[in-house]
Amino acid sequence: MIIIDGKKTAQEIKNEIKTEVVKIKEQNNKIPHLSIILVGHDGGSETYVSHKIKDCEEVGFKSSLFRYEDNVSENVVLSKIKELNDDENVHGIIVQLPLPKHISEKKVIEAIDYKKDVDGFHPINIGRMVIGLPSYIPATPMGIMELIRRYKIETDGKNCVVIGRSNIVGRPISILLSQKSKPGNCTVTVCHSQTPDIKSLTIKADIIIAAIGKPSFLKADFVKDGAVVIDVGTTRIKDDNTKSGWKLVGDVDFAEVSTKCSYITPVPGGVGPMTRAALLINTFKAAKGEVY
Amino acid sequence: MIIIDGKKTAQEIKNEIKTEVVKIKEQNNKIPHLSIILVGHDGGSETYVSHKIKDCEEVGFKSSLFRYEDNVSENVVLSKIKELNDDENVHGIIVQLPLPKHISEKKVIEAIDYKKDVDGFHPINIGRMVIGLPSYIPATPMGIMELIRRYKIETDGKNCVVIGRSNIVGRPISILLSQKSKPGNCTVTVCHSQTPDIKSLTIKADIIIAAIGKPSFLKADFVKDGAVVIDVGTTRIKDDNTKSGWKLVGDVDFAEVSTKCSYITPVPGGVGPMTRAALLINTFKAAKGEVY
Repeated sequence: MIIIDGKKTAQEIKNEIKTEVVKIKEQNNKIPHLSIILVGHDGGSETYVSHKIKDCEEVGFKSSLFRYEDNVSENVVLSKIKELNDDENVHGIIVQLPLPKHISEKKVIEAIDYKKDVDGFHPINIGRMVIGLPSYIPATPMGIMELIRRYKIETDGKNCVVIGRSNIVGRPISILLSQKSKPGNCTVTVCHSQTPDIKSLTIKADIIIAAIGKPSFLKADFVKDGAVVIDVGTTRIKDDNTKSGWKLVGDVDFAEVSTKCSYITPVPGGVGPMTRAALLINTFKAAKGEVY
Repeated sequence: MIIIDGKKTAQEIKNEIKTEVVKIKEQNNKIPHLSIILVGHDGGSETYVSHKIKDCEEVGFKSSLFRYEDNVSENVVLSKIKELNDDENVHGIIVQLPLPKHISEKKVIEAIDYKKDVDGFHPINIGRMVIGLPSYIPATPMGIMELIRRYKIETDGKNCVVIGRSNIVGRPISILLSQKSKPGNCTVTVCHSQTPDIKSLTIKADIIIAAIGKPSFLKADFVKDGAVVIDVGTTRIKDDNTKSGWKLVGDVDFAEVSTKCSYITPVPGGVGPMTRAALLINTFKAAKGEVY
């Protein structure tokens, strides 16, 4: 059994990008620049945004953060997006979600120039991904694909079960893995809250992507010997034994399942760090004009 | 066993639209208007376009056809699209595919204002469909959804197998049927040319969508008793017993499979007529501003 080390892989990706950025600076070319809009003071959002800024610093990207209070009007946010769309020195734009209720996430996402939409949430990027055109792939599915690629996991003709149908994880990864591509060419089943017997499907799967958001949902008897198990779950649960008082738990019962499978991603340290690396990959692609 | 009558259902839809259009005319409101661009003289395309024009006439829509020879430049086609985009009396625009090789289908599709893209091929419409926003759904998947709806076929929690992953049939119908909607909420498996054993999947399916393009591929031993079988295949094969010298054959061996299933679409007269009705539905929605 091989534990897929997302932390190490993400670090490798960051090192690769860092090396390339050094060259770009030597050639006096434009430094990749990510702009982030953050509304309010949600604890999770604060943490994510500070990570994103730190990641940019680490690889030598420029980043700029625009902060607004919870009561900012939708128009102010939309104006800032327009300004960033028009700024040719900005390559990637993200608006940290969730937003306060009076601001439409849909409107905000669609306001971002799709050519700078490095989160891959704009309908154009989703549509282009579906029909196999170059696009920005959302961070989590891209992180998973990158792990599969770098660990040389065979996908061709494999039976893959995706648990969860969310717009940012389950749906896109199911599409990517079933496309005529490498990695890809899986026979993919998407199951979800209305699926009567998930176990009857996962037990036959060569590859399982668990993105259902239920801590330790996937037990050993859900998994066949030698399966590849990718755990996207990240639920915080109380834990008196940690300094912070909580710990992150995945959708997979790691202790049980890891004894049966061929590859498994741990939580934390599996898919999580890869989503951060994916944002850097997309921003770099945007700066180099590789997608549009 | 119930034979799903696509011809009759399409006629019902046309009658419904016709009745509404009469009212629109009485109120002196704008008549729905579909513009069609046809390049060259491909036999299939000529037939499809003439059907589309006939359908418009039948329900009282306005239609306009712009014909170009095979050697027309891409720019001429793109200019015409721009003109139609800007014409507020035109509600829907379609460009009949395939196009000659020197004209980029991708460019042409993306040039159409997505708000008038009644074929549902523009990446924005595909992306919006994926994330569950209002959009134009491509004709074939919309026709299938409409049959399922009108025949009150239960989909919630059902095991659905889609054979084929094309951008205009397999992929979109797999997404629509697995979404949290009614019809929808199926557990959907997409299989394709790289799936090693399609039969092992279809034999357990409550609903089978065959869109693989192989005449009579689906035999009785692929299907469990009581399954719903939707046949999207339309292959022309030689037949000396018909006037035309050929006949249409589906992906399903109708004689064999119909004895086992609960519902089945015939070929011809099943999904085919519904795709024509779907274009009318989309054009009508465009005229009424129901999507954008």
